[in-house]
Amino acid sequence: MPGELSKNCGVDGYVVGIDIGGTNLRLALADMDGDIIARWSATTYESRSADAVVHLIRGGVGQVLKQTSVPRSALRALAVGVPGVTDVDAGVVIATSYLLGWRDVPLRELLEISFEIPATVDNDVNLAAFGESRSGAAIGVKDFVFLAIGTGVGSGIVLNGQPFRGMAWSAGEVGYMFVPGAQDEPAGRGKPGALEELIGGEGIKAQWQRLWRVDSTPLPQVLRATEIFDGAVRGDTLAGTILNQSARILAYAIYNMSLVLNCPLFVLGGGVGMHPALHKSTKELLDKWGNRVAVEIRPSVLGSDAQLIGAIHLALETASRRILRP
Amino acid sequence: MPGELSKNCGVDGYVVGIDIGGTNLRLALADMDGDIIARWSATTYESRSADAVVHLIRGGVGQVLKQTSVPRSALRALAVGVPGVTDVDAGVVIATSYLLGWRDVPLRELLEISFEIPATVDNDVNLAAFGESRSGAAIGVKDFVFLAIGTGVGSGIVLNGQPFRGMAWSAGEVGYMFVPGAQDEPAGRGKPGALEELIGGEGIKAQWQRLWRVDSTPLPQVLRATEIFDGAVRGDTLAGTILNQSARILAYAIYNMSLVLNCPLFVLGGGVGMHPALHKSTKELLDKWGNRVAVEIRPSVLGSDAQLIGAIHLALETASRRILRP
Repeated sequence: MPGELSKNCGVDGYVVGIDIGGTNLRLALADMDGDIIARWSATTYESRSADAVVHLIRGGVGQVLKQTSVPRSALRALAVGVPGVTDVDAGVVIATSYLLGWRDVPLRELLEISFEIPATVDNDVNLAAFGESRSGAAIGVKDFVFLAIGTGVGSGIVLNGQPFRGMAWSAGEVGYMFVPGAQDEPAGRGKPGALEELIGGEGIKAQWQRLWRVDSTPLPQVLRATEIFDGAVRGDTLAGTILNQSARILAYAIYNMSLVLNCPLFVLGGGVGMHPALHKSTKELLDKWGNRVAVEIRPSVLGSDAQLIGAIHLALETASRRILRP
Repeated sequence: MPGELSKNCGVDGYVVGIDIGGTNLRLALADMDGDIIARWSATTYESRSADAVVHLIRGGVGQVLKQTSVPRSALRALAVGVPGVTDVDAGVVIATSYLLGWRDVPLRELLEISFEIPATVDNDVNLAAFGESRSGAAIGVKDFVFLAIGTGVGSGIVLNGQPFRGMAWSAGEVGYMFVPGAQDEPAGRGKPGALEELIGGEGIKAQWQRLWRVDSTPLPQVLRATEIFDGAVRGDTLAGTILNQSARILAYAIYNMSLVLNCPLFVLGGGVGMHPALHKSTKELLDKWGNRVAVEIRPSVLGSDAQLIGAIHLALETASRRILRP
C-alpha cells in the first residue's frame, strides 16, 4: 500500500510503548502511525525488581504479538516510561519512588538485550507531556507544561517542541514547591512534598479528614479527592472549602511556573488534576490574576493513556532514529 | 598584530554596550576582546522618551570616542539593556517599568538609523546573566539563573549556554512569585510583586520600619536593606530577624526555581542580593534542605557592571553575526 508507506516514512513494522507504575504496568502494541492495536496490563505488586519487570514486559509483549498475529521480527523499537528520575541519554533509571525503589538501573540495556531491538527510557510524566504534544491537548504548542496531579504532583515541561529534562534529569519536580499555605521546611525523603501535601490526592483526602465533623457535612469522613470535589459541585459547604483551597494552591503553582518559564499553556492531567470542578475554580483565579501572567489551562486529552501514548511516540522516534543512523 | 587579530577572530574595531536604567544610563566603549576602554554615564530624569534616550546615547558615544580618539567609523555594533520586556528578534521594547513607561518602542531601529551600525536590544537582567556567563561567576556553566535583588527582584535564565527568554520574552519574572509568607493575591500594575515585597530593597526597608520600636533596637528607623543586614552582622537582634526572614524567603524562591528548571547554580546580583550576610544565611538554609535540590549560590562577580558587560558581549556577538551573515 504505497499511501500507507508514505504516511509512515517508508518504515514498516510495529512498536511497543510501556508505562511502568508503582502498582501496575501497562503496554500497548502500535503500528508505525502510532495507532494502538493491542493492549496488556499486569500488577507489579510481586515483581518490582528490574529483572522481574523486564520479564513481565517480555510476557506482555508475547501476549500482544500472539493476540494480533504480529511476528516478533516486525517489532522495530520500544520505549518505557518510569516513575522516577531517568537519564535518557544513558538509558539509566537513576531513582524511582519508594514503590519500586530502583537505583541506577540500566533499563535500556536490559530491554535491548532481552528484545534485540532499540529501546528508550524516560520519566513517565515527561512521556505524558510528549504524548499530549504529539496527539493530545498541546498539538502544535511549542512551549507548555503538563501538570500531573494524582496521588502525587509532578510536571513534564516541553520547550520549543522538545522535552526539557534539566541538567540532572529532574526538571519539573514541582511536588516540592513552596507556596503560601505550605509547610515551611522541605519534607524528608519518601514524604510528600510541600505542594503535594496540599493538592495531591492523598493530601486532599487528609485535609478532608482533619476538617470533617459529624455536624459539618452529611458526607462520609473517608472520601477520595475526586469524591470531595464531586461533593463540592453538589453544594456541600465543607467540600467547597477544600475545593476552593485546592484551586488556589494549584493556581499559585501554575502562576509560579509560568513566571519562571513564561509558558502560555498548562495541560492538567491525573485523576485529581482532570476534575472539571478543580479546573473551573483554578481557571477563574488565574483569569482574575491575569494582568501579568496570561495562562491557559486545558484538561489532558489523553487522560490515563497519556504516558502510554507518549511512550508509543517515543518508540516511533527511536525506531526512525535507529533506521536513519544505524 | 597577528596575535590580537586571531584573538578577536580577525575583526578589527570597537563596540558599545549600554545599560538603560530607570534613573540613569551608562555606556562603555570596548575593544573586540570585550575590554572596556572608556565609560560614560548620565541621569535619565529629564530625558525618558525613547528619542531623548537615543539622543543621550548619541552624546555619550560621542564623548567616549572623543576621549579615546577612536573614529566613529571604527564602531562595529552596539547593544542595549533595557529594564523591561523586550522582543529581541524584532528589536522592540514591549514594555518598561513605570520609570520609563515605554510601550512597543522599536529601539533597535532607532539606534541603527542614528548610528548606521548593527544594534541589539535585550532585557537588562538577561544581559546581566549573559555577562556573568561570558566573563563572570558562571563561565563554562551551561544552565544557571542570575537572580537580581535590588529595589526589585528579577532573574535571567541561561539554559544550554544561551539566554532563555520565554515565549513572550518574559521568562524569569520571579518578582511576582508566591512563596510562604507572601501576600495571597497578585499585586496590581506598577505595584511590587509578592516576592519583591518580601526581599526587594524597598520591601525589606518597609518591614524594618513596621517592626521598628524605639526600645527594640539602637539603630535608626530609616535604613536601607543593606544597612539592616550590616546591623544584623554586628549583632542587632531586630536586624537579625529581618535578615533571617529575607534569607528564608530567598531560599524558597531559589528552591522553587530550581525545582522547575533543575538548575544547579544561582548567581546573586543586585545591591541586596550581593550582601554577604544574606548570601551566608541563604546558603545555610539551602544546604540544610539539600537532600532533594542541590543548588550552589554564588555572588555576582561583575557586580553593578553585569548588565553593561553583558551588553558588550551581546554587541560583540552582534558584530560577528553581521560580519558572518551580512
